[in-house]
Amino acid sequence: MALVVQKYGGSSLETAERIRRVAERIVETKKAGHEVVVVCSAMGDTTDELLDLAQQVAPAPPAREMDMLLTAGERISNALVAMAIHSLGAEARSFTGSQAGVVTTGAHGNARIIDVTPSRVREALDEGTIVLVAGFQGVSQDSKDVTTLGRGGSDTTAVALAAALEADVCEIYSDVAGVYTADPRVVPNAQKLEQVSYEEMLELAATGAKVLMLRCVEYARRYNVPVHVRSSYSDKVGTYIYGSMEDIPLEKAILTGVAHDRSEAKVTVVGIPDEPGYAAKVFRAVADAEINIDMVLQNVSKVETGKTDITFTLPRSEGAGAVELLTKRQGDIGFSKVVYDDHIGKVSLVGAGMKSHPGVTATFCEALADAGINIDLISTSEIRISVLVKDTDLDEAVQVLHRAFDLGGDEVAVVHAGTGR
Amino acid sequence: MALVVQKYGGSSLETAERIRRVAERIVETKKAGHEVVVVCSAMGDTTDELLDLAQQVAPAPPAREMDMLLTAGERISNALVAMAIHSLGAEARSFTGSQAGVVTTGAHGNARIIDVTPSRVREALDEGTIVLVAGFQGVSQDSKDVTTLGRGGSDTTAVALAAALEADVCEIYSDVAGVYTADPRVVPNAQKLEQVSYEEMLELAATGAKVLMLRCVEYARRYNVPVHVRSSYSDKVGTYIYGSMEDIPLEKAILTGVAHDRSEAKVTVVGIPDEPGYAAKVFRAVADAEINIDMVLQNVSKVETGKTDITFTLPRSEGAGAVELLTKRQGDIGFSKVVYDDHIGKVSLVGAGMKSHPGVTATFCEALADAGINIDLISTSEIRISVLVKDTDLDEAVQVLHRAFDLGGDEVAVVHAGTGR
Repeated sequence: MALVVQKYGGSSLETAERIRRVAERIVETKKAGHEVVVVCSAMGDTTDELLDLAQQVAPAPPAREMDMLLTAGERISNALVAMAIHSLGAEARSFTGSQAGVVTTGAHGNARIIDVTPSRVREALDEGTIVLVAGFQGVSQDSKDVTTLGRGGSDTTAVALAAALEADVCEIYSDVAGVYTADPRVVPNAQKLEQVSYEEMLELAATGAKVLMLRCVEYARRYNVPVHVRSSYSDKVGTYIYGSMEDIPLEKAILTGVAHDRSEAKVTVVGIPDEPGYAAKVFRAVADAEINIDMVLQNVSKVETGKTDITFTLPRSEGAGAVELLTKRQGDIGFSKVVYDDHIGKVSLVGAGMKSHPGVTATFCEALADAGINIDLISTSEIRISVLVKDTDLDEAVQVLHRAFDLGGDEVAVVHAGTGR
Repeated sequence: MALVVQKYGGSSLETAERIRRVAERIVETKKAGHEVVVVCSAMGDTTDELLDLAQQVAPAPPAREMDMLLTAGERISNALVAMAIHSLGAEARSFTGSQAGVVTTGAHGNARIIDVTPSRVREALDEGTIVLVAGFQGVSQDSKDVTTLGRGGSDTTAVALAAALEADVCEIYSDVAGVYTADPRVVPNAQKLEQVSYEEMLELAATGAKVLMLRCVEYARRYNVPVHVRSSYSDKVGTYIYGSMEDIPLEKAILTGVAHDRSEAKVTVVGIPDEPGYAAKVFRAVADAEINIDMVLQNVSKVETGKTDITFTLPRSEGAGAVELLTKRQGDIGFSKVVYDDHIGKVSLVGAGMKSHPGVTATFCEALADAGINIDLISTSEIRISVLVKDTDLDEAVQVLHRAFDLGGDEVAVVHAGTGR
């Protein structure tokens, strides 16, 4: 008997019919002799509808009330799945995040899990019941208020529960059949990966792969939770995420895949004095505004002027704010102008195999050059190369890199639309 | 400074526009210098939509999960009202029933409030915040599960909070402007009453007046909470419910109003041996099935047969079940047949004035007789006369009684459609 945590995304729960199908799968798992804990996202468009309602009553709703509002969505879906399980003749009990012992920080809208004390879940499992836990939500340690975990929060709930319950596996069901060597919508012959190490998955998540959110992978890695990403619509095996890159024998280390990200913009601060402390002023200003920057490049100083340029990327949604902020502090920091560009895209190659294959960077650059794609900015880690290109070149960049590193398969991948949370 | 508890029904919260209007009223009350606690029902049709979803996934959903599902509705409306208040520049914090300390029995779908320990509410009020509490819901004392209070539950939440917080008044806002001498849809010149004692309101609620549910009035009476029933759409004073009938001087005691009820059916058990114990068997069988009976009549025994008939009324929704139950036990109980009639209606006259006016029953019966309306069954209390008539005669019965006791005013009452919970 194993303990299995299953997480179902919103599109898998969009209609009564889909809820019944999810319930069937849950009951099958139970009948196979396993203990089952299920985490559900809100049904289909519920969250968007609630956000829309909030917008109608208040232009800038307080985060605490937003959390109270949005958590209703998971409550509804979990109760409905419990009912559907019940109607199949099995026992099920649903719990809110708070009831399941998901204790978080007080950062409404983007709380982090501090601790999971699932005593009521454990008790219910001991009584032979299937347990449902509302994803994406918890209770603040200090104020006892309802909190939400931010994007991808339900995945994190599932992994955190799996860790606390010492589950054998955490299955993430969605409309995506697994982790692919590239987005199958961009690269039709992208292949599903059988297994990915935590480190590689972290890099993929950080560079735009939407299968799992970064925070969820971090949690799985820290507590060593085996994660199985798979499709809600078939019984096929998906992708297992487990194991450290360190444990992969060098000769087996491969290149995992190509990720891309369309959500960033580029800011260039032109004409900064090339003296100690000036670059720091720029980044301090941005950091104080809680803007997360990603790639950074400082140009070589022009000898004749003694000035330099600093370029960084950041989420496009925060671009306007950053420009406004920097412009306000132009005199203080001392630069000549700010240039903003949101027509960019980032493409990344990830894989433990990079460590043992020194020619990767060369092949990477050659492949893009051969396609006439200009590289704007490069950043690398031990197992990743990322470059910035023009947004109109992004799809082609993904395709040529995928081909250059021979990542494709013979079959065309099946794609479903939609995202979960 | 007073402490005011305000309760808003679902139709007052049906759209974002209405929610903003409710928020304005709440903020006005706060600005007038009062402490304000607000209890909201679920928005408009939310509950029906959730019930419909439940029906789609499971034909007979378990009550525990039904409660988890339905309580999402109040969570949504309370959070939205808090946001709307916030956007008007005032502070507001919403709490679930559980967070507000509403402790109930474990009877899912129909729980009773055992205790209210509103320490978090009190704390928030002390910080100068407007407090919102999700109505209709609580937490079970034993299992710590989410419970609901059954029909009219949000009114009960409001009155129970008012009692626990020792509020100065509990205002019930809905599409009804107050308590009327009769349903204005049946009697156009029905008058709004200024004040009604708890006992009279209990009798009105028990005999079909839908303004307040029986349980809510019982709670208000027990804890002596002044209740003000008024319209969400105007600033006019509604009806105050407070004070005991005992405190009304005899000469001021009046007839309060005429209530009617279309929701009952009549069961007649024919040919029961007129010997001790046989009637008890009938009522024990019905009670064991948790069917609530209302009016009861045992006919005089026919001398020639030594048999008698027993007639009782019950909610129409439980009629079929009761007939089936009795038919099954026919041999055991020993009667000749069961007759079922759901073409009935009940009309009641209520008022403390009845005690001091001995001619009331005579006038009552004469009025109906003059209109050619046959009385099927009579039941009385100290301050109420109720009779059963044919359903097709019900409206006319209400009208002639209202006229006979001179309860009408000169104006035509304003009627809004809809009900709250």
